[in-house]
Amino acid sequence: MSEITEKGKIARKAARGLAIASTKIKNYALEKMAEALDKNAKYILEANALDMEAGEKKELSRPLLDRLALDGKRIKSMIDGLAAVKALPDPIGEIISEWSRPNGLKIKKVRVPLGVIGIIFEARPNVTVDSAALCLKSGNAVILRGGSDALQSNLEITRHLAEAAYAAGLPEGSVQLIGDTKRETAEELMQARTYVDVLIPRGGKSLIQTVVQKSTVPVIETGEGNCHVYVEKSADLTMAAEIVFNAKCSRPSVCNAIEKLLVDEAIAEKFLPLVKKRLDTAKVELRCDEKAHKILPDTKMAVEEDWKTEYLSYIMAVKVVSGVDEAIEHINNYSTKHSESIITKDEKSAKFFTDQIDSAAVYVNASTRFTDGFEFGFGAEIGISTQKLHARGPMGLSELTSYKYIIHGTGQVREI
Amino acid sequence: MSEITEKGKIARKAARGLAIASTKIKNYALEKMAEALDKNAKYILEANALDMEAGEKKELSRPLLDRLALDGKRIKSMIDGLAAVKALPDPIGEIISEWSRPNGLKIKKVRVPLGVIGIIFEARPNVTVDSAALCLKSGNAVILRGGSDALQSNLEITRHLAEAAYAAGLPEGSVQLIGDTKRETAEELMQARTYVDVLIPRGGKSLIQTVVQKSTVPVIETGEGNCHVYVEKSADLTMAAEIVFNAKCSRPSVCNAIEKLLVDEAIAEKFLPLVKKRLDTAKVELRCDEKAHKILPDTKMAVEEDWKTEYLSYIMAVKVVSGVDEAIEHINNYSTKHSESIITKDEKSAKFFTDQIDSAAVYVNASTRFTDGFEFGFGAEIGISTQKLHARGPMGLSELTSYKYIIHGTGQVREI
Repeated sequence: MSEITEKGKIARKAARGLAIASTKIKNYALEKMAEALDKNAKYILEANALDMEAGEKKELSRPLLDRLALDGKRIKSMIDGLAAVKALPDPIGEIISEWSRPNGLKIKKVRVPLGVIGIIFEARPNVTVDSAALCLKSGNAVILRGGSDALQSNLEITRHLAEAAYAAGLPEGSVQLIGDTKRETAEELMQARTYVDVLIPRGGKSLIQTVVQKSTVPVIETGEGNCHVYVEKSADLTMAAEIVFNAKCSRPSVCNAIEKLLVDEAIAEKFLPLVKKRLDTAKVELRCDEKAHKILPDTKMAVEEDWKTEYLSYIMAVKVVSGVDEAIEHINNYSTKHSESIITKDEKSAKFFTDQIDSAAVYVNASTRFTDGFEFGFGAEIGISTQKLHARGPMGLSELTSYKYIIHGTGQVREI
Repeated sequence: MSEITEKGKIARKAARGLAIASTKIKNYALEKMAEALDKNAKYILEANALDMEAGEKKELSRPLLDRLALDGKRIKSMIDGLAAVKALPDPIGEIISEWSRPNGLKIKKVRVPLGVIGIIFEARPNVTVDSAALCLKSGNAVILRGGSDALQSNLEITRHLAEAAYAAGLPEGSVQLIGDTKRETAEELMQARTYVDVLIPRGGKSLIQTVVQKSTVPVIETGEGNCHVYVEKSADLTMAAEIVFNAKCSRPSVCNAIEKLLVDEAIAEKFLPLVKKRLDTAKVELRCDEKAHKILPDTKMAVEEDWKTEYLSYIMAVKVVSGVDEAIEHINNYSTKHSESIITKDEKSAKFFTDQIDSAAVYVNASTRFTDGFEFGFGAEIGISTQKLHARGPMGLSELTSYKYIIHGTGQVREI
């Protein structure tokens, strides 16, 4: 039996127990998991040191090594994460709606877990803890498949989480890690429809695309963000410059940072030099369309590829548009349907924009950086969905659930 | 440009207009579509005659020809279907929830269409009308891909629907049919992620499995029903026999009919002869496990394959179980997670069953035949989802929608 089949069977069984586990037991398990990380921090750091050593030998890039590295502070933040999820309300068992039918049937729509969630991620060991916490609290079994670079760290972390969850009374195998990091094994997981109800890839574009292409298990696509700010002609230009600066520069490597700036023709001559001055303080490279380049001759020219690209760094493409229509047309053509913002004082333009833009989060006069489970008040986040099926935008605990109908009758049969 | 790319582009554009079309215009279009079917019934019947002739030459089976055949009554029923969808409330624009954040951001979660829905179906021309109506009312553009046997009927029906919808003010291309019925074209549709937001296969098991296996577009799996009735030992046996008879015999070819009967050991000797007598009136073939066979020696023996099979005919497998635990274990192992029912007077067993059974609809003392959008009071149905992602059980208009977040600010930027 392959590792996937074996762990899949265990997870499927665990999911049945987890679906009916009480909030009290789930919270107790989260508490014990936090304790286990605290008590075993030394071993986790030792395992992480092995990964770091191997990573340095393999000459992983500096940002990759940074993501991989654990220290006391990062372990503390994992522990805090477990406590935060514990404090969240349990979504399971909620009666979403109930009604009676003329024939006397009483129908209840009840929130239930998805079942078994597969998480495929890259070299960030904190995803292990975070995903396990969110899946367990929402009554789901989780199968984790992390990148090979973080294997020792992930194995050590998962071992302590799994032992603590089991000792606290959750089913055996509620949290499992795939130990084999070969590509073929990941692909087997993507085909394991019998055992896995949904796959959530957490990582870069190429990981997500691979999972989308190869999975027969339903996938929730997350995270790619080619986000736009559009500065409409009535905008408060100082506010606009601040928002653009924040949306681009506060953390350029994340998916809710903007990659594109669209500016109304009518204000471009005034606004572009203003915003450039602000962006220059963070050395943002601007790539301009023809009209913007005329105003900012001291910049690069954008090419078609730029409009599609998520740079995730201090680069931004700039386009001058004739108005809200062209802005909407451009955004709906090129965006990844993540987050877009209009800066305007005109309510009609704002409404037109929010009605027509087909993205998960559409802002008026605010930074796109707020697209985040914590900033939305969900208390947690397992990712930001850029698809429209099931969940859209930041996904918290509720987005890790499904529902079922429970129908009570008194012998009803159907006429036809 | 391929037909899929061409129609995909048109559909994507139409979807933008449809997303903001008013309820009034959508309803007017549904009314005009009904009128168009009525006015052009003659041409539709002529086209259908061509399909029927070809089908008879190809020696299609009697049930297939029956599904394909149109007459005045069936066209009337399509027209009534359009009127029924027109009468339903429009789900689009509903504010699902709204809240404010401490930083002053106002967040609204608003119901929006999915966008472009692809429907892949077999030889039932009524699916064309029905799918078009439901997709348009929920603000979605639809791309239909029907089976080759119904092509002439589908072309004629779609032409009138599309013309009427456009004349009523909906965008061009709101309803389109793929004219090329080659397999490769269907497969291209399954990969058309740029243009199609979700695919819903409507048909038999093999169609659904093909779509699930080959699609990179998100799929909603529908319809396969290996449904169970479990007669617990405290059950009213007369009620149980009536429910079993109804769930099996009222319409054996549909997905919410039962395929399996589980009976408690304690009552098997009394109940099995009773229910057999009732089922004999419809000549139901019983396939029994060893224990049931001892009580009903005049029946076939079941083999392992029987527990997995959706017969869709007058065949049913019967198993004697030791109690509710074994019943749940068996159902969760073999069912397609569609509909299951427990017949019992014992509330504890009922709760245990409804808590633990992992299916879309779980009944107490009622026939599984009620799993249906109309019977649930949704007023319409595009299918019954057997997956847990996005929608589960009967899917009405709401299940053809997504949501987006609209966030109003006053210049908010994010600190970190």
